[in-house]
Amino acid sequence: MSGGVGGGTGQVMRARIKVTLKDGVLDPQGKAIANALGGLGFKGVEDVRQGKYIEVKLSESDPDKARSEVEQMCRQLLANMVIEDFSFELEPA
Amino acid sequence: MSGGVGGGTGQVMRARIKVTLKDGVLDPQGKAIANALGGLGFKGVEDVRQGKYIEVKLSESDPDKARSEVEQMCRQLLANMVIEDFSFELEPA
Repeated sequence: MSGGVGGGTGQVMRARIKVTLKDGVLDPQGKAIANALGGLGFKGVEDVRQGKYIEVKLSESDPDKARSEVEQMCRQLLANMVIEDFSFELEPA
Repeated sequence: MSGGVGGGTGQVMRARIKVTLKDGVLDPQGKAIANALGGLGFKGVEDVRQGKYIEVKLSESDPDKARSEVEQMCRQLLANMVIEDFSFELEPA
């Protein structure tokens, strides 16, 4: 009854992806946040770095396949590998 | 020799903050990413939600104080509580 051909058998996984600027890459947005926090009275803020957080739900039951697919998504679209790094966690959704 | 007055004794903590759209809030940016992933040939992408990831380094040696400070930063500046949720982890930097 259930379609078992191919990777997707209906099980859904969720990838939680962080994309961050590499060390040394200027982050004016982070600096702006740090300044704003100082202006609001927060003392002791030493540094702020802003990145992206992306959740992708994908129907793929094989964790290894899902992992390699998410890695390719990051390299091809989600992260600019020249200036950004990425990391992610996978879990059943 | 070391200054122990006040909260900051030179120890630095890092907060890793995720700001995400609440369920039900439209996310056109996430939809655009999902479409682009489909166009690149990734099958099985069911949903994409884009949020922000922010790292804050702060000099505060007391974890409880640091926690409540980061929570206030999120409520006052980093997240728009009407449409966004936040979560964070604290660790020694």
